[in-house]
Amino acid sequence: MNTLIKTIEVIGIFAFAISGIIEARKKGMDIVGIYVVGMVTAFGGGSLRDLVLNRHPLFWVEHYWYPVILLFLSALASAIVRHVTEHTRSMIVVQVLDALGLGLFAASGASVAHQAGTNPFISSLIGVMTGVFGGVFRDIICNEIPYVFQRTELYATCAFAGAWSYLLVIGAGGDELTAVMSCITITFVLRILAIRYKIRLPV
Amino acid sequence: MNTLIKTIEVIGIFAFAISGIIEARKKGMDIVGIYVVGMVTAFGGGSLRDLVLNRHPLFWVEHYWYPVILLFLSALASAIVRHVTEHTRSMIVVQVLDALGLGLFAASGASVAHQAGTNPFISSLIGVMTGVFGGVFRDIICNEIPYVFQRTELYATCAFAGAWSYLLVIGAGGDELTAVMSCITITFVLRILAIRYKIRLPV
Amino acid sequence: MNTLIKTIEVIGIFAFAISGIIEARKKGMDIVGIYVVGMVTAFGGGSLRDLVLNRHPLFWVEHYWYPVILLFLSALASAIVRHVTEHTRSMIVVQVLDALGLGLFAASGASVAHQAGTNPFISSLIGVMTGVFGGVFRDIICNEIPYVFQRTELYATCAFAGAWSYLLVIGAGGDELTAVMSCITITFVLRILAIRYKIRLPV
Repeated sequence: MNTLIKTIEVIGIFAFAISGIIEARKKGMDIVGIYVVGMVTAFGGGSLRDLVLNRHPLFWVEHYWYPVILLFLSALASAIVRHVTEHTRSMIVVQVLDALGLGLFAASGASVAHQAGTNPFISSLIGVMTGVFGGVFRDIICNEIPYVFQRTELYATCAFAGAWSYLLVIGAGGDELTAVMSCITITFVLRILAIRYKIRLPV
Repeated sequence: MNTLIKTIEVIGIFAFAISGIIEARKKGMDIVGIYVVGMVTAFGGGSLRDLVLNRHPLFWVEHYWYPVILLFLSALASAIVRHVTEHTRSMIVVQVLDALGLGLFAASGASVAHQAGTNPFISSLIGVMTGVFGGVFRDIICNEIPYVFQRTELYATCAFAGAWSYLLVIGAGGDELTAVMSCITITFVLRILAIRYKIRLPV
Repeated sequence: MNTLIKTIEVIGIFAFAISGIIEARKKGMDIVGIYVVGMVTAFGGGSLRDLVLNRHPLFWVEHYWYPVILLFLSALASAIVRHVTEHTRSMIVVQVLDALGLGLFAASGASVAHQAGTNPFISSLIGVMTGVFGGVFRDIICNEIPYVFQRTELYATCAFAGAWSYLLVIGAGGDELTAVMSCITITFVLRILAIRYKIRLPV
């Protein structure tokens, strides 16, 4: 089971780091800035989850190859950003990966909080927090109002629905794998639909 | 005694959440953004206090109905904001509640730090931190220089005076209830006087 | 050995607090704002280190005279800022102290992380984090894109090199004092050279 959550984390970290790297590049940062913003985006949500739930060592302290992978990604930043901005298809790939990462992190947050014995509503909030706060920290460092809080396509809402699907499957006696997969699927499908049809919250 | 601190927290949370909701609405955020900014404003100071003092579970993780109450408040955001902006009296009510919340949180910070055995000066700082950092996080997310640090009416200074009154009462052998009430009263009166007579720090 | 790390911290705190105080003054904050920004700059990196490594009590909670010293510094803010802006030589003294503080904090971060048994690469990252995040928090509160991430003279890079020199000396069987001094020297010399010859990263 632990293996599943670790795999989840690696894909999510990859997707989120790319979004941090692109944003840092836009702001004209050098490779150190890009690396740190990439790390904050990729590890911010999970670190907050670990601090809130008093889970030590933090996941990126324990798995030291995560920051190493990000160092290589950062070194490739110019190439990545050029590719993404020149090819609309690459931008779509980034959005798809990001939607996947959102679902993956929401599942990991809800799962860790649930195993720590927190109330389901709190577990769902920690799922959302794990999914979105990497991006929130990225936008704060880049001196922007966090994207996720603006009147835009559904984002946190997708993670919220996904986290609840995780908790409902577990509550109904389902196993961890089914629950995680359910969370990822629901978050992902909702987010892609929201982007495709520009679905926003009414208020 | 625990009951007292919990009651303190509920009133403080309510007052602070409203200020977060109003600010988030001004920035044109949707209900998810409003909810998160409301939560960060209401829980930010107390969460920082709990993390700094290694107090787990965090108070809003333990009392899961706090975030639930805030969800209802956020759903009423439009009505709340309309009411406050149209009626000067409502704006005053919000300022009064906020002054109350500031005193309440300063007391809770100083109390928890004191019970953890920290030095009085540090306890007073943690009281101030608990009182003001919710608002600091709110302003950082909303991409503003924190209100509390600007040359404006006394704010953190009131919490500082309040926290010291708590510590002096405890140090003089007073009971917890008296100390907390003293902190709330001093913070509240100072803050209201500062608003009424536009009292600022000379430097 | 503990004595060495404490001395390190005091000098670093002094240098960093000054940079926070200058920045806060520029933004027109009052003494409360100046004090908080000074504290966040001086204690931010070390607090993050302690939270990430689950080291309690936080160093400024344990050594309560640190915040007291900063209170006196903040009271002298006007004089400090006037002196620094009027005399080019004072500005250079601040940059030298800051370079020293950067080396000192990078050493303390790498040292604490290493003693906690984390992987060398993570230890070097925690060294950099301890050195630079005080300044990052300062810039976030002052509503600026963090200085350290912009395409400017090497900064985090110097701390990274310094942290590695600490780890290499320890790995080669050197004692703590030699390792710390090596980190401070390398960070300091690199940073001063970078300022003097305007060395920037190529990407």
